Amino acid sequence: MSTVPPPADPEADPVVKQVFDDIRATRGSDFVNLLWTYLAFDPPLLKQVWEDVKAVMATPSALDPKTKEMIYVAVSIANSCSYCVHSHTAAARAKGMSDEEHADLLRVVATASKTNALLNGLQIPVDPQFNRETS
Amino acid sequence: MSTVPPPADPEADPVVKQVFDDIRATRGSDFVNLLWTYLAFDPPLLKQVWEDVKAVMATPSALDPKTKEMIYVAVSIANSCSYCVHSHTAAARAKGMSDEEHADLLRVVATASKTNALLNGLQIPVDPQFNRETS
Amino acid sequence: MSTVPPPADPEADPVVKQVFDDIRATRGSDFVNLLWTYLAFDPPLLKQVWEDVKAVMATPSALDPKTKEMIYVAVSIANSCSYCVHSHTAAARAKGMSDEEHADLLRVVATASKTNALLNGLQIPVDPQFNRETS
Amino acid sequence: MSTVPPPADPEADPVVKQVFDDIRATRGSDFVNLLWTYLAFDPPLLKQVWEDVKAVMATPSALDPKTKEMIYVAVSIANSCSYCVHSHTAAARAKGMSDEEHADLLRVVATASKTNALLNGLQIPVDPQFNRETS
Amino acid sequence: MSTVPPPADPEADPVVKQVFDDIRATRGSDFVNLLWTYLAFDPPLLKQVWEDVKAVMATPSALDPKTKEMIYVAVSIANSCSYCVHSHTAAARAKGMSDEEHADLLRVVATASKTNALLNGLQIPVDPQFNRETS
Amino acid sequence: MSTVPPPADPEADPVVKQVFDDIRATRGSDFVNLLWTYLAFDPPLLKQVWEDVKAVMATPSALDPKTKEMIYVAVSIANSCSYCVHSHTAAARAKGMSDEEHADLLRVVATASKTNALLNGLQIPVDPQFNRETS
Repeated sequence: MSTVPPPADPEADPVVKQVFDDIRATRGSDFVNLLWTYLAFDPPLLKQVWEDVKAVMATPSALDPKTKEMIYVAVSIANSCSYCVHSHTAAARAKGMSDEEHADLLRVVATASKTNALLNGLQIPVDPQFNRETS
Repeated sequence: MSTVPPPADPEADPVVKQVFDDIRATRGSDFVNLLWTYLAFDPPLLKQVWEDVKAVMATPSALDPKTKEMIYVAVSIANSCSYCVHSHTAAARAKGMSDEEHADLLRVVATASKTNALLNGLQIPVDPQFNRETS
Repeated sequence: MSTVPPPADPEADPVVKQVFDDIRATRGSDFVNLLWTYLAFDPPLLKQVWEDVKAVMATPSALDPKTKEMIYVAVSIANSCSYCVHSHTAAARAKGMSDEEHADLLRVVATASKTNALLNGLQIPVDPQFNRETS
Repeated sequence: MSTVPPPADPEADPVVKQVFDDIRATRGSDFVNLLWTYLAFDPPLLKQVWEDVKAVMATPSALDPKTKEMIYVAVSIANSCSYCVHSHTAAARAKGMSDEEHADLLRVVATASKTNALLNGLQIPVDPQFNRETS
Repeated sequence: MSTVPPPADPEADPVVKQVFDDIRATRGSDFVNLLWTYLAFDPPLLKQVWEDVKAVMATPSALDPKTKEMIYVAVSIANSCSYCVHSHTAAARAKGMSDEEHADLLRVVATASKTNALLNGLQIPVDPQFNRETS
Repeated sequence: MSTVPPPADPEADPVVKQVFDDIRATRGSDFVNLLWTYLAFDPPLLKQVWEDVKAVMATPSALDPKTKEMIYVAVSIANSCSYCVHSHTAAARAKGMSDEEHADLLRVVATASKTNALLNGLQIPVDPQFNRETS
């Protein structure tokens, strides 16, 4: 059940076709997951989102691809995005996350959520040592 | 401004003293940040939280300490915990996060938040390929 | 699957009957969606929620009905309320939201979520120009 | 710093005056906290919010006043509303919450947040035993 | 659909067996809900989470068990954790929450969420009377 | 207090200079708010974020600029981003939002947050009428 209808033949649109081809080439796989199929209801939105995701996740940068996917999973858990948790857990595994690393990721996310709640409940001042404006 | 008063002399309590000593020994530093000082209003709570955080963050595990701190920052951002963002960004830096890695962390968190919102708005089905129950 | 049982014959209760009749009259439709059916497990709660929603959403006010529904969708996305995203996207469409406006709504919600995350990560001071206490 | 200016003389408006009088009478105190002062920028909004809060929090119901305030604090922590955490922690204390109960409240909120994160990360099916539709 | 596979025979692992036995003994029931079955994919994580939950929820403390479960439900609602809302609503009912108390719980959570949003929108200063650092 | 130091002379960097010039030209104002100053700690991140925000918020699209800013405020409230609430409330006002519209925006956000919580607590099925996959 979705809030937009799935396009019947998304790649009939040339913008969609170009994006899907780039997704397949970037990932080295024929699999295009449903996010992109549904986003094709608005080709400019599809194109903008893919370009953003590609620039951040599929371009070499300071952090390695597996770490970036694990951070993505952590955020998706905190935002309670079911689809995103599924798709980025799968992506992290595809990029090498082991079962032990997955358990460790969940452990850190769980403990962070716990102390986030405590601190939001305590409302204490931030230690001046953490301030980078004056350092 | 906080919801609990800061204890006047927290280490007068032997449980608090033991926890603070362990914090200093574990970190190899005399600095005990304000979270622990305020949590000392309830020594059993202080002890339980410290043991949980220590087990997850200060014990060798599948993920390295810097990666764990960056995941902690990501969750704290998504949960809008100001204190936690400050303290764990500082911790990640202390464990080696560079300016470039910090920017990359923020970039991933930002893009994840963007697609989390899109997916929560689209409410699309999850690709069966992501299901691990049948794999 | 729900946390309250659906009432077998909700309109047997006179308070529920009155609320359902008002929902049908206000909307000019026989369709009463499942939120109201399930809320009928507690007629005073049903009545209070309907009166609040009716006063805000079905009463002429500064903003037009379509804009109010789009704001409702935006909040529901951010709060990850699946039912609410579905029902208020449908309501926005019924009040005239086009496919292009829907895509634009999602685009704004997505970009807002991205910069919300960035700012929660940066923890920067608010520009004094934004302060309305002194203006 | 606020997004609306504080009214110079809020009780000059008769709707505001009536609401403030009712706040004082309901609470048996001359203290009107700043939420209501700022909400007076729009008297109908002020009136609607006060009536909702009064009906839920200041009217005898199935749960006792202290328990309701503690639930209010729990929600405010999860939603990261700083003002709300402060004001409802104070209200819970005024209605009898002890230091031990405050610590216990924080402990439950912290552990709930931890397992919420774990479950949002695991995305497991709900046990059919929890379904009330068929019970 | 889950992000970890359900273990085929979880109690073959002695750590899992010990935890499951303790869950059954603590609850006086043979029913072990699916959270624990899936968490068995990583026995140390299972053990740590159960010990935390048991210490907070199944150990006598300042708040009674029913109140603690209702607070747990409130947090789970705010964090949009579907599984947690189901399992802890069932637990609260098992510990005596009546239909009227359930409705009252939902009423408080709903009104708190409403004023949380208002205050996050108004960004007003906190009354100095709520500050416990100087009291 | 921030997690990155404010650059001493951000426009000494040519990428930053170009972005700041574009911000000033796009807005027709010399005022560059602090978000951009701090983001200048990483010029590529600054550039990417500005281009995304500009494409969505400063480019003619299906929704008018004032409506887009109000949706931005709604999301920022739900995500508890203090800076974002301030800056986008100011932007909405600059684009014509009246006091009455501001009150109406807050009213809708508040009521949406209330029913979001109710629905997340009830966990009811979505009416098939809302499904767009089969329509």
